[in-house]
Amino acid sequence: MKWTKIEVKTSSRTQFIDITGLVSDELAKSAVKNGACHVYMTHTTAGLTINENADPDVARDILAGLAHLVPEKGNYRHAEGNSDAHIKASLMGSSLMVPVIDGRLALGTWQGIYFCEFDGPRVRNVLVGVSGE
Amino acid sequence: MKWTKIEVKTSSRTQFIDITGLVSDELAKSAVKNGACHVYMTHTTAGLTINENADPDVARDILAGLAHLVPEKGNYRHAEGNSDAHIKASLMGSSLMVPVIDGRLALGTWQGIYFCEFDGPRVRNVLVGVSGE
Amino acid sequence: MKWTKIEVKTSSRTQFIDITGLVSDELAKSAVKNGACHVYMTHTTAGLTINENADPDVARDILAGLAHLVPEKGNYRHAEGNSDAHIKASLMGSSLMVPVIDGRLALGTWQGIYFCEFDGPRVRNVLVGVSGE
Repeated sequence: MKWTKIEVKTSSRTQFIDITGLVSDELAKSAVKNGACHVYMTHTTAGLTINENADPDVARDILAGLAHLVPEKGNYRHAEGNSDAHIKASLMGSSLMVPVIDGRLALGTWQGIYFCEFDGPRVRNVLVGVSGE
Repeated sequence: MKWTKIEVKTSSRTQFIDITGLVSDELAKSAVKNGACHVYMTHTTAGLTINENADPDVARDILAGLAHLVPEKGNYRHAEGNSDAHIKASLMGSSLMVPVIDGRLALGTWQGIYFCEFDGPRVRNVLVGVSGE
Repeated sequence: MKWTKIEVKTSSRTQFIDITGLVSDELAKSAVKNGACHVYMTHTTAGLTINENADPDVARDILAGLAHLVPEKGNYRHAEGNSDAHIKASLMGSSLMVPVIDGRLALGTWQGIYFCEFDGPRVRNVLVGVSGE
């Protein structure tokens, strides 16, 4: 199992970036036909999630929903002032897995893979690894 | 690694359905004794989680807790009116993994695998794949 | 793929315990150089997450943020009085995966692996399994 690194440049403090195509490209470079595609990001103020990528209002509403749940300003102690980003990171998670069937990501019709920026803008690293045969 | 599809029929807008037995059945069909059982669902208004399946009030309380966190009506833009379901989907996640030891799911005493419906009733698809030897 | 069990003793009702070293030790015992390290816990009132382990205020702020989102006392039905812990367990998740590159956990600079206790103090079980070559 070989991991490759994708760079993702974000442009706002909070932002969902559709990385489905980038992950698909890495899968295509592997010879795996049936297995699992693992995606991991190496940060603590960002996350990964799978959700609808047809209507951009869905990503907007998820970001707004998370901002409502975890306000930027609160009774936080961490001196960097980005505790909201750390909390959102743990709510979304740092990795995800998508089944690989016949050499393709077995995503549902409306599913896309999002990089979730919660403390940008930054350049972020995502690792993609494919297991199987 | 071979993926098989399970169909899950839900009967309410929001509902937790225990799919532990369905996943166990798929594991039993594989020859894997030690490895990992991966579960994935292909939707953006539903999720998967592992939690207690002894007292049904636990699932009820998790659903109520999520409804409190993410109200059905809010300042959402997505025109379909189910943004709460998309947010809950990302909070729960679209996949999960359970260790396989001696040919069985290594779940804890109180753990069960739940399909989380947030915008039903619908017929939903779950993929189960087992890796290992 | 072989799973080994780690015991984690918690000392408070809610607590984040850094288990990065324990997981690294299990990885070191395996011969895997490139693959995936899977971590699973067998409980329904605890979870696993990856977040910053440099400033301890981050873990404190995540615990405080979760306590704010999911109060200990609420309109719950589960008779054991720990529904908040079950809800937080599903928000964090019961498993996580870290890429293995050159025989080491490919964690980001600030990332550590936390066991999340939500209904302690207790003795908890964590399973670690490494796949790859």
